[in-house]
Amino acid sequence: MYAITLVIQCPDKKGIIADVTSFVYAHKGNIQYIDQYVDRENGAFFMRLEAELNEDNCSYDAFINAFQSGPATAFNMDWSHQPLDYKPRMAVFVSKYDHCLYDLLGRYKSGELAVEIPFILSNHADLAHVAKAFEIPFYHIPVTANTKTKATEEQLAMLEQHQIDFIVLARYMQIVPPALIDKYTSNIINIHHSFLPAFPGAKPYHSAFERGVKIIGATSHYVTAELDAGPIIEQDVARVLHSHKVAQLVAKGRDLEKIVLANAVKHHIAKKVLVYGNKTVVFI
Amino acid sequence: MYAITLVIQCPDKKGIIADVTSFVYAHKGNIQYIDQYVDRENGAFFMRLEAELNEDNCSYDAFINAFQSGPATAFNMDWSHQPLDYKPRMAVFVSKYDHCLYDLLGRYKSGELAVEIPFILSNHADLAHVAKAFEIPFYHIPVTANTKTKATEEQLAMLEQHQIDFIVLARYMQIVPPALIDKYTSNIINIHHSFLPAFPGAKPYHSAFERGVKIIGATSHYVTAELDAGPIIEQDVARVLHSHKVAQLVAKGRDLEKIVLANAVKHHIAKKVLVYGNKTVVFI
Amino acid sequence: MYAITLVIQCPDKKGIIADVTSFVYAHKGNIQYIDQYVDRENGAFFMRLEAELNEDNCSYDAFINAFQSGPATAFNMDWSHQPLDYKPRMAVFVSKYDHCLYDLLGRYKSGELAVEIPFILSNHADLAHVAKAFEIPFYHIPVTANTKTKATEEQLAMLEQHQIDFIVLARYMQIVPPALIDKYTSNIINIHHSFLPAFPGAKPYHSAFERGVKIIGATSHYVTAELDAGPIIEQDVARVLHSHKVAQLVAKGRDLEKIVLANAVKHHIAKKVLVYGNKTVVFI
Amino acid sequence: MYAITLVIQCPDKKGIIADVTSFVYAHKGNIQYIDQYVDRENGAFFMRLEAELNEDNCSYDAFINAFQSGPATAFNMDWSHQPLDYKPRMAVFVSKYDHCLYDLLGRYKSGELAVEIPFILSNHADLAHVAKAFEIPFYHIPVTANTKTKATEEQLAMLEQHQIDFIVLARYMQIVPPALIDKYTSNIINIHHSFLPAFPGAKPYHSAFERGVKIIGATSHYVTAELDAGPIIEQDVARVLHSHKVAQLVAKGRDLEKIVLANAVKHHIAKKVLVYGNKTVVFI
Repeated sequence: MYAITLVIQCPDKKGIIADVTSFVYAHKGNIQYIDQYVDRENGAFFMRLEAELNEDNCSYDAFINAFQSGPATAFNMDWSHQPLDYKPRMAVFVSKYDHCLYDLLGRYKSGELAVEIPFILSNHADLAHVAKAFEIPFYHIPVTANTKTKATEEQLAMLEQHQIDFIVLARYMQIVPPALIDKYTSNIINIHHSFLPAFPGAKPYHSAFERGVKIIGATSHYVTAELDAGPIIEQDVARVLHSHKVAQLVAKGRDLEKIVLANAVKHHIAKKVLVYGNKTVVFI
Repeated sequence: MYAITLVIQCPDKKGIIADVTSFVYAHKGNIQYIDQYVDRENGAFFMRLEAELNEDNCSYDAFINAFQSGPATAFNMDWSHQPLDYKPRMAVFVSKYDHCLYDLLGRYKSGELAVEIPFILSNHADLAHVAKAFEIPFYHIPVTANTKTKATEEQLAMLEQHQIDFIVLARYMQIVPPALIDKYTSNIINIHHSFLPAFPGAKPYHSAFERGVKIIGATSHYVTAELDAGPIIEQDVARVLHSHKVAQLVAKGRDLEKIVLANAVKHHIAKKVLVYGNKTVVFI
Repeated sequence: MYAITLVIQCPDKKGIIADVTSFVYAHKGNIQYIDQYVDRENGAFFMRLEAELNEDNCSYDAFINAFQSGPATAFNMDWSHQPLDYKPRMAVFVSKYDHCLYDLLGRYKSGELAVEIPFILSNHADLAHVAKAFEIPFYHIPVTANTKTKATEEQLAMLEQHQIDFIVLARYMQIVPPALIDKYTSNIINIHHSFLPAFPGAKPYHSAFERGVKIIGATSHYVTAELDAGPIIEQDVARVLHSHKVAQLVAKGRDLEKIVLANAVKHHIAKKVLVYGNKTVVFI
Repeated sequence: MYAITLVIQCPDKKGIIADVTSFVYAHKGNIQYIDQYVDRENGAFFMRLEAELNEDNCSYDAFINAFQSGPATAFNMDWSHQPLDYKPRMAVFVSKYDHCLYDLLGRYKSGELAVEIPFILSNHADLAHVAKAFEIPFYHIPVTANTKTKATEEQLAMLEQHQIDFIVLARYMQIVPPALIDKYTSNIINIHHSFLPAFPGAKPYHSAFERGVKIIGATSHYVTAELDAGPIIEQDVARVLHSHKVAQLVAKGRDLEKIVLANAVKHHIAKKVLVYGNKTVVFI
């Protein structure tokens, strides 16, 4: 017995669901869970399904090959698959803020995040001790105007060597170089400390304070070439009072950042996030 | 062209989704939206789907009959159907509180609720003026210890005469008689002014105040024989402060009641609520 | 016995609270409630207090005069006062959307809003029937490029004639003319259908849909010369899903708008909102 | 210069605020922040104030003594004081769940919690490694039916020896013995993994699942003799879906527990929580 997750995007057409579900049934599989969405205006179809199959009837590879030459070709699908129990390999990039790192690693150790974390990478040495406390390798690759190209090459080499599936920027205070964005499209998750599109940029809590908003937020999104403008995965908000100083907004915000980032990572791991255009479908 | 909503419950088995979706496809229908859930522990399967069909290929009645003798029989389904544009006939029961009534009727007039409201019924005459302002017939059926049986009969007669599909208790401060509950099982929606199961009974805001909770709630549920214990459809909460007096809890609570009840009614109208055991599946 | 609300702003200095509270005590008053806030960065002091006094010891007018020549002068206060049971006179401006109007009037009739509503004013005739149902005078003053100046004059005349204290724009789809803003500074409350500063302008739900946000909001603010940029009084948010179409965002948003606007109006009525710079202190 | 926090409860009477604020002013102090609340029904007055004073004018001890013989005696106050920069000494009790512990220690290391943590105590050895990673002493005091009395004595001795001010039960799965409750009344903070008073007892997530609630919660409260019935400090909630299994409720709940407990601890540290009867006043 094995379980598989299929994630599908294609132009909307009659009969896709019938075809896919019949295909699974014909291979003696059992659909455990199906999520489906159609964007009518854009004629786009999205589906995620989990199915259980039996090695004796059809191996994983045979199933994948048959699906590719069957429904995937018939409906011109952009699709991917993953064993349900696969643990993606996640790299964590940090700078000096430790709260998101503590939070992710605490969840990792508790078994809440079904990932491998081969390493933590930083442009500063400050958080090496956190990595050490959690017994995860820590690499310090400084990034300056002069070393930028070399740093990018080192980063790419490390990501490749460790077969990283996706990257989490846990308050990594650096612009991600295009070479990484290209290679890990829809696989670099950032946490922005505001309710985007309000207050993009470097100091959102100060901007929120200046504007006198009554609610602050945090936004997790995939990194794209345009800063803070990638597809949004998850957002959350918290109420603030006039009496909150910037420092208190920051403290409140940290809790939001941790939870929003952790939820985005969980959705990503489970392949529940489908990117199209600059938006996401999130099957929660 | 016509559109249909199918809602299905049955024992979980391999191939249900494939069978149903293939059935729709074979009748030249197009599935617009599918929601599905399996309760593995109880081996129970739930599905709601919206499909578009063509009169020329298959009439509504022909489709229904074929589905009954096809998948419905094969998988032992408990199922129902409704034209997507059907406007259920909703009776509103009230007593003296007007906020939920104003809210429902405001939404109704705005076109937000896809229902017909043949009448408003009350055990008191107080809210006749509201019904009049919104030009909806209002019937006053007093309920006392002596008139209870007669009142129940009158209510049943009115509900039948007006072909009522479901009843909304918009703060109707009376126990609903078993005869109504039996006839309109899973079709009587109540709003309870607390976060059930906390503070059941008549004065939840006073109890919440006494206990010093920091959050109050409202719960919409189907009415069953046991008071305040029926399947929960929707809940929401709001933060309160130590400085809030009971009257302020009541005022805050009224807003919750309005929104929670309206959302429950909307889900019910769209046939998105499936009852099983004492719980609900809500496909939102 | 009478009760009074005092609202004070002044430069921060030692001893203000002691002076004010001693003043009340010296006039045999009893402070029922005190709220205080200091913005240290700007050296600004804010206070709101409710006190009970006795006509026999000190009349309302005598108290006010003594306060003016006493603490108010000593600390260079910008202050105002109001009998605790005063019902401000509120004008409601609307266009064609009825949900906020229904909501405000429902609350008004329920006794939830301690105001008088001398009239409803609109640039369209569409909602006359709502005003009629609630038995409130309705005036239709069309606003076109040509009639703008005359319309403003008529509006000002009506506001003056009815001794209006503050104006609520319940989805009034017109730019408020400077003459009104000047005359009713910090007394015109608008509801904007987004989480400002995200998505200012005319079609925020469409913008939110385009950007793919996971949360939408509503913002109530005082109207200033700059569009959608006045001091924020209240905000709230609701979660949305990828499957929500613009129409559903709009429906969800309407509930937010109603509640956010109603809360802002309640805070304003109770003189709990203090404006300074482009921000507010809200003593909730 | 020094800053002091005063927290006061007393029977409500005319002139308390005037008297206290004048007292501070007479000692050349400057009130930075004042919070006040009166429970009229019970005639109870509550106040918290922060003031800045000058050693040259009045030492901390002199101020305290003068306040005791002055306002505190005059109004029969139950009061306490603390230097604004005092870091209370907090003991953490845990069993086997690590998420609240990781969260508290992460915040502590980030400087978010202004406390000293002299030790972590557990009835199991499981979490010793967490304590070690954060370099905090860990004591393992097993509690069995036989060793209960001895364990209590050891706990009391440790608490005394380390001059502990308050105890946080970070998912400590043991009944706290009466001897500790008596000695640390209103100084033992528990996190209960439900929205009390719904689902008290040992397995609230299972009960919530059974009841089919649409929202789950967490409650932080002071420990009293009656289980799960002490004064509530903080609560929060999260939405759940029918598709969430118990394990997912547990995971969602862990995030609530962390945040609710951390907020309760922060309020307690800042002396913002006043207990009266079985309720709290929380000046946030």
